[in-house]
Amino acid sequence: MVQLMEEMTWQEVRGAAAEGLPVVLPVGSTEQHGPHLPLNTDCVIPQAIALAAGEHYPLVVAPPIRHGAKSRPLSGGGEGFPGTLSLRATTLLSVLEDVVAGLARAGFAKVCVLNWHFENAPFLWEACEAVSQRYPDTRFLVLDQPLPEIAPADIDTIFGGDFQGWEVEHAALAETSMMLAACPELVRTELIADDRSERRPGWETLPPSPDTIPASGVLWKASGSNEAAGRRLIELAAERLRSALKAEFG
Amino acid sequence: MVQLMEEMTWQEVRGAAAEGLPVVLPVGSTEQHGPHLPLNTDCVIPQAIALAAGEHYPLVVAPPIRHGAKSRPLSGGGEGFPGTLSLRATTLLSVLEDVVAGLARAGFAKVCVLNWHFENAPFLWEACEAVSQRYPDTRFLVLDQPLPEIAPADIDTIFGGDFQGWEVEHAALAETSMMLAACPELVRTELIADDRSERRPGWETLPPSPDTIPASGVLWKASGSNEAAGRRLIELAAERLRSALKAEFG
Amino acid sequence: MVQLMEEMTWQEVRGAAAEGLPVVLPVGSTEQHGPHLPLNTDCVIPQAIALAAGEHYPLVVAPPIRHGAKSRPLSGGGEGFPGTLSLRATTLLSVLEDVVAGLARAGFAKVCVLNWHFENAPFLWEACEAVSQRYPDTRFLVLDQPLPEIAPADIDTIFGGDFQGWEVEHAALAETSMMLAACPELVRTELIADDRSERRPGWETLPPSPDTIPASGVLWKASGSNEAAGRRLIELAAERLRSALKAEFG
Amino acid sequence: MVQLMEEMTWQEVRGAAAEGLPVVLPVGSTEQHGPHLPLNTDCVIPQAIALAAGEHYPLVVAPPIRHGAKSRPLSGGGEGFPGTLSLRATTLLSVLEDVVAGLARAGFAKVCVLNWHFENAPFLWEACEAVSQRYPDTRFLVLDQPLPEIAPADIDTIFGGDFQGWEVEHAALAETSMMLAACPELVRTELIADDRSERRPGWETLPPSPDTIPASGVLWKASGSNEAAGRRLIELAAERLRSALKAEFG
Amino acid sequence: MVQLMEEMTWQEVRGAAAEGLPVVLPVGSTEQHGPHLPLNTDCVIPQAIALAAGEHYPLVVAPPIRHGAKSRPLSGGGEGFPGTLSLRATTLLSVLEDVVAGLARAGFAKVCVLNWHFENAPFLWEACEAVSQRYPDTRFLVLDQPLPEIAPADIDTIFGGDFQGWEVEHAALAETSMMLAACPELVRTELIADDRSERRPGWETLPPSPDTIPASGVLWKASGSNEAAGRRLIELAAERLRSALKAEFG
Amino acid sequence: MVQLMEEMTWQEVRGAAAEGLPVVLPVGSTEQHGPHLPLNTDCVIPQAIALAAGEHYPLVVAPPIRHGAKSRPLSGGGEGFPGTLSLRATTLLSVLEDVVAGLARAGFAKVCVLNWHFENAPFLWEACEAVSQRYPDTRFLVLDQPLPEIAPADIDTIFGGDFQGWEVEHAALAETSMMLAACPELVRTELIADDRSERRPGWETLPPSPDTIPASGVLWKASGSNEAAGRRLIELAAERLRSALKAEFG
Repeated sequence: MVQLMEEMTWQEVRGAAAEGLPVVLPVGSTEQHGPHLPLNTDCVIPQAIALAAGEHYPLVVAPPIRHGAKSRPLSGGGEGFPGTLSLRATTLLSVLEDVVAGLARAGFAKVCVLNWHFENAPFLWEACEAVSQRYPDTRFLVLDQPLPEIAPADIDTIFGGDFQGWEVEHAALAETSMMLAACPELVRTELIADDRSERRPGWETLPPSPDTIPASGVLWKASGSNEAAGRRLIELAAERLRSALKAEFG
Repeated sequence: MVQLMEEMTWQEVRGAAAEGLPVVLPVGSTEQHGPHLPLNTDCVIPQAIALAAGEHYPLVVAPPIRHGAKSRPLSGGGEGFPGTLSLRATTLLSVLEDVVAGLARAGFAKVCVLNWHFENAPFLWEACEAVSQRYPDTRFLVLDQPLPEIAPADIDTIFGGDFQGWEVEHAALAETSMMLAACPELVRTELIADDRSERRPGWETLPPSPDTIPASGVLWKASGSNEAAGRRLIELAAERLRSALKAEFG
Repeated sequence: MVQLMEEMTWQEVRGAAAEGLPVVLPVGSTEQHGPHLPLNTDCVIPQAIALAAGEHYPLVVAPPIRHGAKSRPLSGGGEGFPGTLSLRATTLLSVLEDVVAGLARAGFAKVCVLNWHFENAPFLWEACEAVSQRYPDTRFLVLDQPLPEIAPADIDTIFGGDFQGWEVEHAALAETSMMLAACPELVRTELIADDRSERRPGWETLPPSPDTIPASGVLWKASGSNEAAGRRLIELAAERLRSALKAEFG
Repeated sequence: MVQLMEEMTWQEVRGAAAEGLPVVLPVGSTEQHGPHLPLNTDCVIPQAIALAAGEHYPLVVAPPIRHGAKSRPLSGGGEGFPGTLSLRATTLLSVLEDVVAGLARAGFAKVCVLNWHFENAPFLWEACEAVSQRYPDTRFLVLDQPLPEIAPADIDTIFGGDFQGWEVEHAALAETSMMLAACPELVRTELIADDRSERRPGWETLPPSPDTIPASGVLWKASGSNEAAGRRLIELAAERLRSALKAEFG
Repeated sequence: MVQLMEEMTWQEVRGAAAEGLPVVLPVGSTEQHGPHLPLNTDCVIPQAIALAAGEHYPLVVAPPIRHGAKSRPLSGGGEGFPGTLSLRATTLLSVLEDVVAGLARAGFAKVCVLNWHFENAPFLWEACEAVSQRYPDTRFLVLDQPLPEIAPADIDTIFGGDFQGWEVEHAALAETSMMLAACPELVRTELIADDRSERRPGWETLPPSPDTIPASGVLWKASGSNEAAGRRLIELAAERLRSALKAEFG
Repeated sequence: MVQLMEEMTWQEVRGAAAEGLPVVLPVGSTEQHGPHLPLNTDCVIPQAIALAAGEHYPLVVAPPIRHGAKSRPLSGGGEGFPGTLSLRATTLLSVLEDVVAGLARAGFAKVCVLNWHFENAPFLWEACEAVSQRYPDTRFLVLDQPLPEIAPADIDTIFGGDFQGWEVEHAALAETSMMLAACPELVRTELIADDRSERRPGWETLPPSPDTIPASGVLWKASGSNEAAGRRLIELAAERLRSALKAEFG
């Protein structure tokens, strides 16, 4: 019902496209996620969402884009952490154009781009817009932000009453919980800890102000992370992805 | 106390930079703003904010960037409206890099980039990051989003109780009011009208779905727009800009 | 009869294009123009020419391109003056391609590009050539150089008998007079003065030789500038623009 | 002794770099490999080689580059097979530059790029050459071709006496055997079959001649593939990689 | 005293650079030059000028850039003539940057760029400006236009009293005469003929107006061409080149 | 029967294309070739091959591409030799695209790209692939490597029993002999000497290891070079070129 395209043969891809299945391209990053989460966190999570969506809606998951836009201090700690491997905006745009065009050329008439790394958001639409001109018969769906609005009660349950906004949920409770649900063997549970930057202005500066970057790379509380919260968040995103696919592709 | 750089001579610019004044670069667009607002709305507004900030904090306003990132259906109606003159992402990045580097080369040690067109947001940081490598002694401040969080009571006063979120405030009450305050002679008041798209999903599609684009280009209510609300919004943004300048540049 | 596109609404643009009006895109610069002229001199002048042409030939004036090609020592004093904000050639080409294509996409079938900044000249044609391949039904007219050949008697009247060639008319009598005619409030009349470089070879060197750059940024005599001469020069250029539009667009 | 960087935390990466470990970046492709091998074959194999090398020589394996240069008819069947997702040369160069620079910035003083996809070969050196200018203290080792020259007797053992040259070993016995050794669960053993193009000239044509492309995407015999041969080939490549690392990095 | 770099060995180049010789890079085109001149006319002429200059001033002639900027109708007949092989502006800029940087890297401290193809003019300075940032100790001299102003009497002698301006001297008397002097075996003397376009406006249009392009590709009179005039023109340009070299490089 | 396009007029080119002649584009380099061979060796040789092929198969030889991909230590001594003037990969790709497209636009329906500089190889196909999308009716033939496999006896005759592989035949016996056959006046016979690097690993490093670069730039034995061997090698390549042209173009 759901297949990882990178594990498929070309004939299986041809078959899936001929059947009219949509293909979902997760776009992530290789980026620091604190002392307890691996660099591939932003790839594992959107792939898990796509796989979960695929359990009730047949689709193909394309090989994730594993290097994303440059990490910014306020949303990912910035480029100063060793192991963060980012692309310049122009590189990322070219990669997205080439890969998305490759999916269209493969015969998929329904292409969905599913983002997890905040900094990638604007590039997805730009790349699809360019490809759309060349493949007018393909439909592209761009999900910059996979999570739906979540009811306050749900938020309280998931975050144990201490939710401070999605913008600080980098390497914090949400992502840690989703990794505990999707790939627990990569979570260093003993190193889960809370952190925050000294100061959190509503703007970026360059060179980045050290007081806006938490030492550990964790932007807010990660303690209290748990698999159930992670499963719930993945399921909420998967439901939204399915709704979007249904609404746009039938 | 505040000067438009485009009207200054080179010697005046040299003097302002030598005095340590910050320079604020408004980044806008040339984009449809409904039947009642001119294409330069996104240039007039951030310039007005910068000028207002400058009344209490000496600064120079650089010539606005007048062509912005491509308009998207959900935030600006999209590229289908005649008169919307946008840049590809790669072009915009190059323009920003060249102009921001030019400000640093002119001797300004404090450069602030002030955005008004939603789609431009990510490109400002990316460009400043690249320039910052070449001008390590210049400090750059990136204000993607100039408005502060506004208290609910204020929101009610400004929007007459019918605020539906900033994402639909394109050519609607907020922008129309700010134009009435900043440049009333360009507002066709007799054509101010409400509109909305038939459907407002949380994702973009390509080619864009016609039912997500309002016929007039107005994304929500514009009726009720008034100069006082506009003055208030400009002042709120100007205050925030001043705070940011003070916090980062002293 | 003549309209500034940046002040029009999208519906007015659609109407003008549908009527078959030509659109004129002034291409200028943000560049030092001596101690007495503002940085936007190269934007004000071609816009004034287009407006003057439009008094007798209905047309739309597109928002000027306000950043031009890099300033060269022999024609504009070079990149060393604070406040000169130029684009790399590749950036300028991209901007021109995007904006000119946007005018074609808006429905204008007659697009004229009107240059004032010497260094921009070659890029206009190159950009229009690229866009022309994609919009074969649009006609493009490229006016690298807006002034016609002027009769010697006229030259004498305008320049008071001391004309040394157009190549030194940067921030000198011609441009100062045109600014006195088009935008007198921006001319610092008390600072109008003559200048010249020590040496004026027929070639450029890099790094630029200091003796080829006048200290003030004025390349020749500016004293004697007067509004009447400016009006005459604007009118001569406007007549030529009208002739070109008539000859090519009917 | 050997670690997958994508599964490491940023602190672990910092530690490995501080210890002086080399990092090996596998560069592969997402490309058709016949009816029996998955699209990620060119990523699995170089990662397996790097992991094998790492058993006797401590190193870090960077996240493989999963999209490679365009597939050519004579070496990979060409771009016509659904599921082949390639990058333009300019995109691949940018990706390699960004990722290799990211490894240098992470603190690795010894960076090895290990290729498996034939068409990628020239781009690795070009990208490292560019990065090397910016990171003069980092040493880069480029292994275009990971297999050593293999003794004829060994060749006979591995290929069962029917070796026709490495250039036709796409999706044939060598790659199939290596996948049987490295990732047997992804090999559709029942679909292993021989194939060849009708004609095999020593040059490429465009558009590609159909008679130079085998219908299945397999360029030569795949029957007879076996895990032992695969293990032997991986070990030969791993030995060579270790020799190269020792020779250049000590 | 003068040497063609392409015929030198690397050790000879090293020697010449060490001696302090300047290197002159001719920049031409591969472009139609009427029925009587070869496509390489714009390469032969500047090389002949450089060689002539070198007879009295020791220098090295770098391998000419043989593909230039796109041909325009009014200056070279345009891109419609078979055999005209031009580069996009962005390509030409990159070529010039790479080659000029290569000359600086070779050790030449004095680099002169000598243009013959009108459309190339602006790109030379732009490329040298970029390279100059990286090689601050190298001096670059840009000769956009190699001919000096010629005294009216000389003009009359050379052109037989029928000179109409340099802008129509494409494949006409000047270039034909210079080819008769520099490379007579490539001139089809029996095909020398006059031509002109029906109309010669002072602006370009796109698509080009057929009435602005002469059928033969000759922009003005070629009859009357003669070797003596050619030798004279080459010598005038060579003298100017020597003056420029002396003035700037000593 | 064979013509150098650069010496043809545009009408002759038009005629040749109309006759259906193929055009062969030699792609070379400007690169050190030891103390005895000129920098244009890689241009002279493929042009000589094309001319030889043309003696028995009518064709046009396009102006050679005279600057190639960056020289690598193991195949050409690297970028450190004065006089080597190379292009970045992105520049070379653009040049090839523009020139190959120009040949198609000229009306040639059969375009052959003939390489001699090893490092250029991959870029030819990439550029032709891009152009082929725009000129679907043109056939492109890419000869990365012009020499056929040569029978061992022939190899022995040519190399006097001391052949060590093509990869070290840079500025060695093969190229020196071909230059003696094609352009003997440019060979400094008294300087012909053998050389080799101290070490010859099967991989490149950056910065390049000095012990992998021979001091003279000659990668192997050049002594024993002779015109007969050169003529034989040129003829072998010419035969192969003719076979390829016949096989693909009829």
